[in-house]
Amino acid sequence: MAASPGAAVGRVVFDSATAVAWAAHGERVVLLRRETNPDDLEGMIAASGILTSRGGKTSHAAVVARGMGKTAVCGAEGLEVDAVALVARAGEVTVNEADLLSIDGSTGEVFLGELAVVASPVVRYLDDGLTAALASVDDDTAELVRAVDRVLAHADEVRRMQVRANADNAADADRARAMGAEGIGLCRTEHMFLGERRALIERVILADAAQERSTALAALLPPQREDFVALLSSMDGLPTTIRLLDPPLHEFLPDRAELMVQVAREQERGEPTEDDVRLLAAVQRLHESNPMLGLRGVRLGLVVPGLFALQVRAIAEATAACIKAGGNPRPEIMVPLVGSVMELHLVRDEADTILAEVAEREGVELTIPVGTMVELPRAALTAHRIAEAADFFSFGTNDLTQTTWGFSRDDVEAAFFAAYLDKGVFTVSPFETLDADGVGRLVQIATTEGRAAKPDLKIGVCGEHGGDPESIHFFHRTGLDYVSCSPFRVPVARLEAGRAALEALLADAR
Amino acid sequence: MAASPGAAVGRVVFDSATAVAWAAHGERVVLLRRETNPDDLEGMIAASGILTSRGGKTSHAAVVARGMGKTAVCGAEGLEVDAVALVARAGEVTVNEADLLSIDGSTGEVFLGELAVVASPVVRYLDDGLTAALASVDDDTAELVRAVDRVLAHADEVRRMQVRANADNAADADRARAMGAEGIGLCRTEHMFLGERRALIERVILADAAQERSTALAALLPPQREDFVALLSSMDGLPTTIRLLDPPLHEFLPDRAELMVQVAREQERGEPTEDDVRLLAAVQRLHESNPMLGLRGVRLGLVVPGLFALQVRAIAEATAACIKAGGNPRPEIMVPLVGSVMELHLVRDEADTILAEVAEREGVELTIPVGTMVELPRAALTAHRIAEAADFFSFGTNDLTQTTWGFSRDDVEAAFFAAYLDKGVFTVSPFETLDADGVGRLVQIATTEGRAAKPDLKIGVCGEHGGDPESIHFFHRTGLDYVSCSPFRVPVARLEAGRAALEALLADAR
Repeated sequence: MAASPGAAVGRVVFDSATAVAWAAHGERVVLLRRETNPDDLEGMIAASGILTSRGGKTSHAAVVARGMGKTAVCGAEGLEVDAVALVARAGEVTVNEADLLSIDGSTGEVFLGELAVVASPVVRYLDDGLTAALASVDDDTAELVRAVDRVLAHADEVRRMQVRANADNAADADRARAMGAEGIGLCRTEHMFLGERRALIERVILADAAQERSTALAALLPPQREDFVALLSSMDGLPTTIRLLDPPLHEFLPDRAELMVQVAREQERGEPTEDDVRLLAAVQRLHESNPMLGLRGVRLGLVVPGLFALQVRAIAEATAACIKAGGNPRPEIMVPLVGSVMELHLVRDEADTILAEVAEREGVELTIPVGTMVELPRAALTAHRIAEAADFFSFGTNDLTQTTWGFSRDDVEAAFFAAYLDKGVFTVSPFETLDADGVGRLVQIATTEGRAAKPDLKIGVCGEHGGDPESIHFFHRTGLDYVSCSPFRVPVARLEAGRAALEALLADAR
Repeated sequence: MAASPGAAVGRVVFDSATAVAWAAHGERVVLLRRETNPDDLEGMIAASGILTSRGGKTSHAAVVARGMGKTAVCGAEGLEVDAVALVARAGEVTVNEADLLSIDGSTGEVFLGELAVVASPVVRYLDDGLTAALASVDDDTAELVRAVDRVLAHADEVRRMQVRANADNAADADRARAMGAEGIGLCRTEHMFLGERRALIERVILADAAQERSTALAALLPPQREDFVALLSSMDGLPTTIRLLDPPLHEFLPDRAELMVQVAREQERGEPTEDDVRLLAAVQRLHESNPMLGLRGVRLGLVVPGLFALQVRAIAEATAACIKAGGNPRPEIMVPLVGSVMELHLVRDEADTILAEVAEREGVELTIPVGTMVELPRAALTAHRIAEAADFFSFGTNDLTQTTWGFSRDDVEAAFFAAYLDKGVFTVSPFETLDADGVGRLVQIATTEGRAAKPDLKIGVCGEHGGDPESIHFFHRTGLDYVSCSPFRVPVARLEAGRAALEALLADAR
């Protein structure tokens, strides 16, 4: 499956650590995994491209790769990946560690060996601007590049919706800005918790004593603050929506089944370690049958004392630092997975206290909007209540699709989406193009009723649908203020937002 | 937690097999488990009462126990259950296998030793009728029993909604009928797949070859047919809604983590068995991160060839047999987890073919309504389309609550419901009393728009909310035709449906 566009060539590695080590020596690598999980994030950052044998267009690998603008091919089910023996097989063909591989993220093709990669002049234009792109092409191609520039300029003139990008760090934010993003619609703070910081979050969650939790939280404050200073500096003057910690509990904990196997092996050898047994007991206690429907988002924030407070404090202090340095930071705090207005009130009350305290101490004015994701049917259905406590709504259309249909993207794409497309239940995956009749109806209800309660409520979308042409036209018709998508889809979103505005004008004129 | 009302006294057993063995010798047992799963079903049937240390009012143990009318206390978190050492501990107190234990399913209390259990005259009346109850009580109590009888008779006169019961077999159906149920609103066919039959379903799902699957399906036909003959005979003349197979895939498969541990242990001992390794590979292939949001219900029916066809054929043949025996069977076929009208069309087309074929062969007329659960937000939001293909709707309010709020009952009750009740996010669990603002709004949308498309559409509810007083009033106001609940809640449902009708009359009169 073509999971994230682009082309990548590199030597095959089977684990994240090797990817990081080889990349540090200047080697280009392709990370080949059965599937990826948050532990692979550093390897994915280091790799030129990502190839998985399982999962679809909305698997972890695909979503994260698109977010990074990294080439990825996913769900190459013909490949049997043996990460222990460091070998992958596809029929007669064997791929060993260090073999050269080329992947095409736009077609889903995988080639043995090193293929030539040609930079497209349009990509050059989008990345580096008109002058740089024109400098390196012949006259005919220059005409094409100029035409693309005129089309985009025209779209920018006529569109009503703003276009933001989903970006989790300053490097992505810079790229998004170059592509024409007018702000960040979604910064996923969980992607900031790697390495040592992930271990600290694990300690926060597993802590038995308040003291132990506070210590871990305190250690997280300085690096979180630095992340936000970098992000807000990169997006100076533009709105930057930062989402508080969202993912399911298990993403911060060791894998339960693997830990069970480890302890069983230790027991068989007569050498069980007390630490593993204790850790397993804690992981068992927190184990969830359906993590997507478990203790996550605002629920985790309300149950784990100090977690959201840490993030709000880091945002407040980073904003104060940017203001003092003469900048114009414009953060917005976004609360994930709200289903009831009371959840938002509780988080907001705590946030307001912290913002006031930091503003007072630093001697700056901090007016930071607090809003919510609308990603549960109940949030959409009670939008008139939730609007009371929200400065903005942002539709998380991936999660909203999951709950409206009652299927999780990780599980269903491989299991039955092909059969459903075949039988005509879908004409296109609802994770690619917004399901207007079901999910879209909730978007309309929430927009209409949220605005009825609060006319100046700002409303956007930050799911992957924000970069899908057909969905963008739907969002325009529904009256959203902005769409937010992966940096690399920003130009398409600008174009389609312009086309949607023109179509509406034409329809009115008829 | 008081999970299923009643009182039970018996000797403690820690596993299902022992429960079955001891009960076969006339011993009363209390099944004590950390939590239960479908493998425990036979033990639960054999036990007088069920006690678990984990899970809430909507855990597997609680839901199944209420369905059976079996006393249960769940989530006794102070108890540490060691099913291997056959011992449970609560602080200083130790409970061994064969110790006598008394549990109160109405208060959630657990007592060491054997307490006296007194049969309530009201329960006697509900179970065995007025004459039997009056025969064994003094005059004052007789007055009370007669008053209860008059109140229920009055409620039956004035109520508009019918009351059905959720019952999975003929014994439960008989009890439901005695309690005044006017039909079965939900027969969960998955509860028919125990022992040998569960192994056959596992073979159906894991089958590599069509032939292997057909053989397993063919073996399932006669026992399924016999189940339905018994059920339809018990409910002769009354509507009997049979739901096609619904539960998540993993409930029919061995536990993945346990199997991983088993294979690891075998490997450590240098004696891995090929069968286990092969089975593990198959289970890994079908593993789901979020089984509630995975391949289940109508999806499984559309992906596994012959599965729903088997069940429809068994229902058709059982109905034909009952008609030929002079009965008046009134089955209704219910399709679970529909999110799109196309899914229902596909199942319906196949069902109609089979019904016509059996009717022709048996020389009887088979007019069996086919309808759908409405348990996904999308089903409610597109009810006007789904009504095209449905003879009836039945709201599955448990699942609809799960998807509308985006939390699974198994995971959230223990994890954060106490905190949410404490902080005032809920005043009552939405799994106990229907959340009128969110879930209830979907019920209203589906009822209004379903009837707009098809005025004679029959609409009921078969989630546990069908037995909750406040929710019953909501369903009356929304215009539902019937509620369906556990047999033991039928009298309460009759009473509250009557009160709801009177309240509406009074409101109109004002």
